[in-house]
Amino acid sequence: MATKYSDDSFLIHTDLYQINMMETYWRDGVHNRRAVFELFFRKLPFGNGYAVYAGLERAIQILKNFKFTEDDIEYLRTEGGFQEDFLSYLSKLRFTGNIRSMKEGEVVFAGEPLVRVEAPLAEAQLIETVLLNIINYQTLIATKAARIKNVILNESALEFGSRRAQELDAAVWGTRAAYIAGFDATSNVRAGKLFGIPISGTHAHSMVQAYRDEYVAFRKYAETHKDCVFLVDTYNTLMSGVPNAIRVAREFGDKINFIGIRLDSGDLAYLSKEARRMLDEAGFRDAKVVASSDLDEYTIMNLKAQGAKIDVWGIGTKLITAFEQPALGAVYKVVSIEDEHGQMNDTIKISSNPEKVTTPGLKKVYRIINGTNGMSEGDYIALEEENPQEEDRLKMFHPTHTYISKFVTDFEARDLHHDIYVDGQLVYELPELKDIREYSKASLGLLWDEYKRSLNPEEYPVDLSVKCWDNKMRNIEEVRQKVKALKE
Amino acid sequence: MATKYSDDSFLIHTDLYQINMMETYWRDGVHNRRAVFELFFRKLPFGNGYAVYAGLERAIQILKNFKFTEDDIEYLRTEGGFQEDFLSYLSKLRFTGNIRSMKEGEVVFAGEPLVRVEAPLAEAQLIETVLLNIINYQTLIATKAARIKNVILNESALEFGSRRAQELDAAVWGTRAAYIAGFDATSNVRAGKLFGIPISGTHAHSMVQAYRDEYVAFRKYAETHKDCVFLVDTYNTLMSGVPNAIRVAREFGDKINFIGIRLDSGDLAYLSKEARRMLDEAGFRDAKVVASSDLDEYTIMNLKAQGAKIDVWGIGTKLITAFEQPALGAVYKVVSIEDEHGQMNDTIKISSNPEKVTTPGLKKVYRIINGTNGMSEGDYIALEEENPQEEDRLKMFHPTHTYISKFVTDFEARDLHHDIYVDGQLVYELPELKDIREYSKASLGLLWDEYKRSLNPEEYPVDLSVKCWDNKMRNIEEVRQKVKALKE
Repeated sequence: MATKYSDDSFLIHTDLYQINMMETYWRDGVHNRRAVFELFFRKLPFGNGYAVYAGLERAIQILKNFKFTEDDIEYLRTEGGFQEDFLSYLSKLRFTGNIRSMKEGEVVFAGEPLVRVEAPLAEAQLIETVLLNIINYQTLIATKAARIKNVILNESALEFGSRRAQELDAAVWGTRAAYIAGFDATSNVRAGKLFGIPISGTHAHSMVQAYRDEYVAFRKYAETHKDCVFLVDTYNTLMSGVPNAIRVAREFGDKINFIGIRLDSGDLAYLSKEARRMLDEAGFRDAKVVASSDLDEYTIMNLKAQGAKIDVWGIGTKLITAFEQPALGAVYKVVSIEDEHGQMNDTIKISSNPEKVTTPGLKKVYRIINGTNGMSEGDYIALEEENPQEEDRLKMFHPTHTYISKFVTDFEARDLHHDIYVDGQLVYELPELKDIREYSKASLGLLWDEYKRSLNPEEYPVDLSVKCWDNKMRNIEEVRQKVKALKE
Repeated sequence: MATKYSDDSFLIHTDLYQINMMETYWRDGVHNRRAVFELFFRKLPFGNGYAVYAGLERAIQILKNFKFTEDDIEYLRTEGGFQEDFLSYLSKLRFTGNIRSMKEGEVVFAGEPLVRVEAPLAEAQLIETVLLNIINYQTLIATKAARIKNVILNESALEFGSRRAQELDAAVWGTRAAYIAGFDATSNVRAGKLFGIPISGTHAHSMVQAYRDEYVAFRKYAETHKDCVFLVDTYNTLMSGVPNAIRVAREFGDKINFIGIRLDSGDLAYLSKEARRMLDEAGFRDAKVVASSDLDEYTIMNLKAQGAKIDVWGIGTKLITAFEQPALGAVYKVVSIEDEHGQMNDTIKISSNPEKVTTPGLKKVYRIINGTNGMSEGDYIALEEENPQEEDRLKMFHPTHTYISKFVTDFEARDLHHDIYVDGQLVYELPELKDIREYSKASLGLLWDEYKRSLNPEEYPVDLSVKCWDNKMRNIEEVRQKVKALKE
């Protein structure tokens, strides 16, 4: 039995420590100091050479309702033990900050701020959990989908994973992420309804079992549907399923579109080749072979290498859960904070692991496009006040292995961030999903193939400007001095 | 940008093929034939010896709104291409069937029907996707949580995974599943509000960074909160974090409850031992060490083996995503179907993989409790009409390796299914979450330790009755004859 509170708010979808910190800030009177947080991941998933950013639309959906409800406040009062003065502040809280973000579908890399939140400290802190929850998952799935699409190439890719998704939100938002990265359709009707993704599906084993006769079942389906794909592996694929599909297709002739057959178990390489031969011999050369059964980029590549005759790929569990690596480790770190004099000060988190040291300061990310061939030379992270486009000659160097560097001359420096919220107002017009999908394809088109292969891709350069790097070193030194002083 | 349709229904959270099959059944006039579907998984996850069932409350929440909305119908008309007569049927559709289910928190095993749906064919078919989506995930997480709790033992286990969960639903329903299986609290405030789970959390690295001074930050927190756990790894755990925590704890004395410190990175074995020593030397022998950082049952066991001094465990990514195996493969299979004469006929799905052959017939699952020691002897799956309690001597044998068998005499046969829906009416009273948690603990208490260890547990017996097994063999033979006839 649920509690007396209704599920009327996502602003409370946050970690308790965010609210505890807000209380400290509020009581100390620093809650409205400007703070800059960046959301980024430290390592690309699946050993892939890039990631595909997704989650912005959902994040905006949540931010549009940035308001604690009466139920939220009552819960925080009764169970959270917070006091009335602070609760009164919370109940009046609205988002007043700025948010800049990559566009959904953007090809992104480790260390880049995907989202930059510049807001009163308390507000920026509060939304950390929900932003990470959304963007971590959707970016993970879009990236996995792009990897899978990269081996499927021009054949059709269908998302079939709802029954194995991690609860309902993952099923619909996951399939949206997959569609952004190039998938063609989903089996989930609700996702079709919410996002306008094409929906796909015919019948299950249960229909064959319900009629207790495969031939009868296929006939019944053909009597009631123009487009027919028959699932052929309920009893025996080659001895029963394919022959029954062919028999029904012949009997119905032009009355149906015999789109093809679906294999859902067994040795897909062997079965698809045999089924193809049987369909061809029966004169159904245009009939397609749809295959599903725990597929991912590895099994698909392997099936193709074995000469499997598969035209349409249905992908479930391995995509919708990112089975190989079901979490992206994106984090949300403060990089700059206003002090008591109204000055912004950069701030850093140190770690013995160099990849975990944050990069301080208000920053922008540019994609450096080569003016000659139109391809991307790498990404360039610079401080807000810099303008790389004005430089004749851009020095790009590796952020940890600094000896790796190059100069770029004829280039376009494309700012990858877009204004989403300005002073608490939503200023971004959400694109149509199909446009996001097109944008993603174009974004991927800027990358050389070396960065896109699924095994051992080259490392795409994501470099810091000299000023940005110097600023980071200065901040590290400052903290070291402080820790040293404490020791002495 | 989303479509014009509102997100006002979960009944449409289904695979398109379910609706396509419903159309075939409806046009063929067989949509109201009684059908029995069972939901079960074929293999325990994580190599564990048992699973913990969860998801029923959420499933009921969905079933309570078993109704296509106007928006659903409009979408199916416009984008689905379904015709008016069928849409009219769908718009009037309500659930009229029976559902029996295990209780949430029940210890369950492979091959057992967790849920049994007995309903008009079309209704039973429609809810497959959403039931699997929910129960697959929640049972997976409850099982992972039970494994982790099994190594944490009597220390505290906190769920910290929201930011890495696969979208919002997973964060809250996943933490509920973890709580059922013995976790003590969650960081997710919304989960606390919705389910009454205790919430937990203090402050993040960002607070230390916001004040740009760890000592100041700890002081500010202590000034505004009675209960204090200081996060000590923003700059340097042993040189800065722990000494600052001790300093503030001394300065504030009785004004705060110095609960302890939290470690979130680095070598937790070494750091926890050193921190413990420093706290003890400072006289804070009751202060606790909270640890987090990609923990799961393997790292926890390892840390304990190294003598780590950790009192409270915060578990994130590895639990909430079931990182090691992020999907449970539960399926939903028809086992019996009414024919044109009103007779129920059992039905089977064959596979070359023996574990994938379904077990036909309307069945019950009993837990066989030994009358002498009160421990479980195994589970017993029998046909509906059987009553194992009436037998003097119960023959239990392995469902695939039939030579493994035993006789049980002094026993209680406990029916594990409960009526949830009868003739479309909800008859089950949802228990309080804390009672579900207690029930789960008691259910686990019936198992010998051999089945509960995390590495290489003994296989718990889940056996078929002789009648059930004979019926299965008869069904297999019947299909074989049919396929053979087709070949000749």
